[in-house]
Amino acid sequence: MMSGTGTNTVSVVDGSSLLSYEGVHDARLRVAERLVQTPVVRSEELDRLVGARLWLKAENLQRGGSFKMRGALLAVERLAGSGSRGVVAQSTGNHAIAVAMAAAEYGLPAVLVLPTDAAPTKVRRIRDAGAEVLQAGTVLAERIAVVDELKAARGLDEIDPYQNPDVVVGQGTATAELLHQVHAAGGALDAVVVPVGGGSALAGACLATRGHGIDVIGAEPAAVPALTAALRAGEPVTVDPRPTIADGLRPDRIGRLPYDLAHQTVTGVVTVDEDAIAEALRLILIRARLLVEPAAATALAGALRIAATGRARDIGVLISGGNVEPSLVAALLDQRS
Amino acid sequence: MMSGTGTNTVSVVDGSSLLSYEGVHDARLRVAERLVQTPVVRSEELDRLVGARLWLKAENLQRGGSFKMRGALLAVERLAGSGSRGVVAQSTGNHAIAVAMAAAEYGLPAVLVLPTDAAPTKVRRIRDAGAEVLQAGTVLAERIAVVDELKAARGLDEIDPYQNPDVVVGQGTATAELLHQVHAAGGALDAVVVPVGGGSALAGACLATRGHGIDVIGAEPAAVPALTAALRAGEPVTVDPRPTIADGLRPDRIGRLPYDLAHQTVTGVVTVDEDAIAEALRLILIRARLLVEPAAATALAGALRIAATGRARDIGVLISGGNVEPSLVAALLDQRS
Repeated sequence: MMSGTGTNTVSVVDGSSLLSYEGVHDARLRVAERLVQTPVVRSEELDRLVGARLWLKAENLQRGGSFKMRGALLAVERLAGSGSRGVVAQSTGNHAIAVAMAAAEYGLPAVLVLPTDAAPTKVRRIRDAGAEVLQAGTVLAERIAVVDELKAARGLDEIDPYQNPDVVVGQGTATAELLHQVHAAGGALDAVVVPVGGGSALAGACLATRGHGIDVIGAEPAAVPALTAALRAGEPVTVDPRPTIADGLRPDRIGRLPYDLAHQTVTGVVTVDEDAIAEALRLILIRARLLVEPAAATALAGALRIAATGRARDIGVLISGGNVEPSLVAALLDQRS
Repeated sequence: MMSGTGTNTVSVVDGSSLLSYEGVHDARLRVAERLVQTPVVRSEELDRLVGARLWLKAENLQRGGSFKMRGALLAVERLAGSGSRGVVAQSTGNHAIAVAMAAAEYGLPAVLVLPTDAAPTKVRRIRDAGAEVLQAGTVLAERIAVVDELKAARGLDEIDPYQNPDVVVGQGTATAELLHQVHAAGGALDAVVVPVGGGSALAGACLATRGHGIDVIGAEPAAVPALTAALRAGEPVTVDPRPTIADGLRPDRIGRLPYDLAHQTVTGVVTVDEDAIAEALRLILIRARLLVEPAAATALAGALRIAATGRARDIGVLISGGNVEPSLVAALLDQRS
C-alpha cells in the first residue's frame, strides 16, 4: 500500500519535487520524531450508527492541537536553516499556533496575524508559545495586507498557509500517516475526507493518496463554499462568506497552489450546513470521546454523507484539530441535553 | 522493564497463579486482539500546567467506553468455555456494559443489575448490546441481593466486578499495557494513579507493576472514601456514601479480593473533592481533548495532587472510561464559560 507510484510528480512551483507522493511520504518520516503519531480512533458505536467503518485520524491530539503543526515544522525548519531573522503568518488560528510553536523551537521570533473574531482560545495558545499576535479585519485580504506590511517593515519571512510548499507537504503527512496506520491495522480505505479552508489539507491528501485508488473528498461549510465555487469556476474565486461555527474553515478563497495540486485529483466536495457540523461535533464527542473543533466536525459530517450513499465502506476522516471554545461546546451540548 | 519478577505470586483464591505479575502480563497478550490498544496520550499543555509528565492511558477509547471490557472478556470467555447458560452481574454501569458486550460476543444471555440512579447513557449502552437491565436500590447490598435471586432462579453465572479473579486480572491488563507503551516510548513511570471504586483497577495495577518500583496510588472521591476507610480499619468496611458525580466510584465498600491483593502494595490513597473532579474533567477535555467520565477525572485529580508534591515526575494515569452524560459535561463547562 505504501509502495511508490510517484511518476506523477507535480511541478507547479520551482524545485518542487517536494510536491509529490514521495515528497509527502518522505516528509512523514522526517517530521515524525518531532510530532505525536496521533492514533487512528475506531468506534464500534459510531460505525454502527453510521453504517460504515470510520478511521478517525485524531490530529486533535497533535502538538498545538491540530495537524497544522506538521507543515509549520517543515517550513520553519527550512527558514531557520537559511538564516531567517523571524517569521510572519496570517491564519484563522491553527496555522498561527503551529507557526508560533515551531518558531519557538527554532529560536525564531514570530508574528501572527489573525482575524479580529478569532477564537480566544487560539489567541491565548499563540501568546503562550511566546509569539506576537496582531488582529486585523475578518476576511483574508485584510490579513494579507498586514502580513505584506510586516514583511517589508521588519524583514520577516512569510509562512503562507496555502502557498508554501513545505506547508502543503507537511499537511499531507497527516494523510500519509493515516494510510500507513490503516495499512498496519490490516485495513484499506475507500475514501478519505478532509476539511477544506484554504485547501492545504486537501492538496496534501491528494499527493499522499496518489496511486492508491482512494477517493479524496473535501468537506466545507455551506456558509463558505470556496472549493465548490473554485471547482465550478475552474480557478480559485473569492466567495461571500456567511457566518459559520467552523472558524478554521473561514478562508473565503482556495489558495492557488492547493487548487492547482488538487483540482484534477479530488473526487468531490461535500458542503455541510451548520446543524450538520454541530451534530457531528456532538456525535464524535459522545460516541468516540474526542473533543474536536468545528472544522474537524465538518470533515466528519462530510464522511457521514458519504457513508449514507453506501459507496464507501472504509472511510478515513482527517480530524484536523481540537482547539475549540469551551463555551461553544457547552452551548452545543445544551441544545441536545 | 517488562522482565518478570514473579516470585511474589499471590494465591488468595484457589488455583490463582492467574493473580500474579505473569498472569496479568500474559492476559494482556491474550485479550489484545479483541480489544483496542488504546493510546497513551501526552499533552504538552497539560504537562506545563501540571509541572509533571502525565501519561494518560486513554481507556475512554476502549470498546464499551471503559477498561472494564478487559476483565469482562476474560471472565465471559472462561464461563462460555465451561458451558455457562448465561451470566449476571451487578455494577454501577461500566462493568455491566462490558459484561453485556462480552456476553453478546460469546452468544450468552446476560442480565445486569444497576442502581436506580445509574447514568441513563450507561443503561442505554447495555440495552444496545442486547442484554437485560434490572435496576435495584442505590447501594451495593441491594444489587447483590437481586443478583443472588437471579442466580438461584435462572441458573445464571455471576461475574462479580470485584471478586472474580479473571476480572481483576483483566482490569490489570490496562496498567500492564500502559507500562509496555511507556517503555516502548523510552519512558519510565515513577507512579501510576488509578481510580478506586470496588478496587479491581487498583488490585490489577498492583499486580501489573510488581517489581517495577512504581508507586501505585488509588484516587477516590472524598464522598465515598472506601479505600481510605479500609486501609485504616485493616479490612474492607462499608462507608456511608455522600453524593458524587463520579458515578463509577460509588461502591461503598472495597471488594475483599482487591483489598487482599492491594493493601500491602498500594503506596497511598488520595481523596479528591467534587470540585477537583469537575475541574479535572474540564482540564483533560479542553487541554488534552479527551472526553472522560468523572471516575477517570478522579484519577487525574489524584495525579495533579501527586504532581504538586514534586515527588513524581512521570505519572501514569488510568483514564478508566468515557461514558458520561452529555448534560453533565455541558453543566460542568457552563460553570466556567
